[in-house]
Amino acid sequence: MRDKFIREKKIWFHHCDPAGIVFYPQYLLLMNEVLQEWFETGLAIDYAGLFAERDIGIPAIRLECDFLSPSRVGDTVQFTLSVDRIGTSSIHLRFSCTGSDPADVRVRIKAVLVCVSLDSRRPIPIPDDIRGAMQSRRSPALDV
Amino acid sequence: MRDKFIREKKIWFHHCDPAGIVFYPQYLLLMNEVLQEWFETGLAIDYAGLFAERDIGIPAIRLECDFLSPSRVGDTVQFTLSVDRIGTSSIHLRFSCTGSDPADVRVRIKAVLVCVSLDSRRPIPIPDDIRGAMQSRRSPALDV
Amino acid sequence: MRDKFIREKKIWFHHCDPAGIVFYPQYLLLMNEVLQEWFETGLAIDYAGLFAERDIGIPAIRLECDFLSPSRVGDTVQFTLSVDRIGTSSIHLRFSCTGSDPADVRVRIKAVLVCVSLDSRRPIPIPDDIRGAMQSRRSPALDV
Amino acid sequence: MRDKFIREKKIWFHHCDPAGIVFYPQYLLLMNEVLQEWFETGLAIDYAGLFAERDIGIPAIRLECDFLSPSRVGDTVQFTLSVDRIGTSSIHLRFSCTGSDPADVRVRIKAVLVCVSLDSRRPIPIPDDIRGAMQSRRSPALDV
Repeated sequence: MRDKFIREKKIWFHHCDPAGIVFYPQYLLLMNEVLQEWFETGLAIDYAGLFAERDIGIPAIRLECDFLSPSRVGDTVQFTLSVDRIGTSSIHLRFSCTGSDPADVRVRIKAVLVCVSLDSRRPIPIPDDIRGAMQSRRSPALDV
Repeated sequence: MRDKFIREKKIWFHHCDPAGIVFYPQYLLLMNEVLQEWFETGLAIDYAGLFAERDIGIPAIRLECDFLSPSRVGDTVQFTLSVDRIGTSSIHLRFSCTGSDPADVRVRIKAVLVCVSLDSRRPIPIPDDIRGAMQSRRSPALDV
Repeated sequence: MRDKFIREKKIWFHHCDPAGIVFYPQYLLLMNEVLQEWFETGLAIDYAGLFAERDIGIPAIRLECDFLSPSRVGDTVQFTLSVDRIGTSSIHLRFSCTGSDPADVRVRIKAVLVCVSLDSRRPIPIPDDIRGAMQSRRSPALDV
Repeated sequence: MRDKFIREKKIWFHHCDPAGIVFYPQYLLLMNEVLQEWFETGLAIDYAGLFAERDIGIPAIRLECDFLSPSRVGDTVQFTLSVDRIGTSSIHLRFSCTGSDPADVRVRIKAVLVCVSLDSRRPIPIPDDIRGAMQSRRSPALDV
């Protein structure tokens, strides 16, 4: 499917807590790594250039996370990113994180990001190159 | 109000990202600090003893987070924890994070935690001492 | 003693690893918190303003760390910062981290920071207000 | 050379600070990822099993770090691990982190790890399988 972006991630020692499992905020760092890779390789957008050169930020404004099953040091997990909806300034994404068996769902996340000007800290329309890249990767059925 | 637990938190350099604001997963670390303090001083439960001696974990199984306004290095923010509902194994909490002006809401989080046995990784009833401590801190109107 | 700056720090759950003790890089985050507090309250320098307004960075260029004894979730540790030497661009600091008993040394760190221009990324002389504030806090015996 | 273990690492947004460069403690997390990979694939030792099943910890007891040149979001850096010396309980390692040009050294780290019993928290002799795996990877000239 054209609208899915998949990356494997390794669970490192530093992701895990005294209970021996991934401490849940660490999944959000992993999710953000996948987001960065999606921009860089999936969308071919210079991610670092967004804030370093174009004064654009894409902060999360809303997250819904379900932590269903634990991960442990040394696990390899698979993150799948899909685009739910693209608004004027907002990007609605879904992430799932599974073990090597896709039925072994560890985490589900719905994230809403918003394009902001780092100068004004106000929302701005998603720039055309980003919108175009996201739309070209989406299946027709998901177009808004 | 008996059911609110309030803690000030400092925004450190290491909480902030290249856009100069708190990177959103860091709010969850701060929230978890407030949770630990709530157990230790609000509920008078030995938090470290839970997993180190009693083989009890209290992982988050669901989070809903709204990031409304950014925080910056050097800010002092105020976290307020309130108990929404106490189930058999689950603890439903709300957190708000504001600037020095309480109307300046930075983040709102609804978190569902669940008591689990670290041996079996299965939910267990909330132990009586924890349940009792949480209930004695709640206002009658909030009792379930 | 005028040249020591002392701060208590709490060991949070998120500092600790699957072996149940503070994961050593976390001590460096705690050290950096103490550094920030030293600037803000010890030296009365606007720490956030350094990089946000004055285009000054103070990165570490060298660290020597000895991790002598472990810390655990819920511990309160005490960090002591002392100034070793102030060069043209460099600031040589020592940190110790102890348990509640000062003889229970957990970590010793020697850190060399350097003032840099964030524009040029080159070392710059320590600005006069920072140098003055640091010198006024040092005991004569330690002056270079 | 048999005694070098090399891994590429990506610089993520969450590694970087408000000055736009890798915050130095993050290099130690990256170093620890390389250490974990070295155990898992270089030495074929079950790294997670060390603390989860064999009650062995390998904490760092000493670090010397030189931070020579900054890294930025999106950079790919190369970590090289080499074994300096193997003692009774201690493992002396060197890490270098470079940009894509090997002459562009970003960080140099000397780390001393020590094998400890997680029960007694006392040093123990390096287990034979770990010692054997490390020695078989070292060049004769480096043997102690």
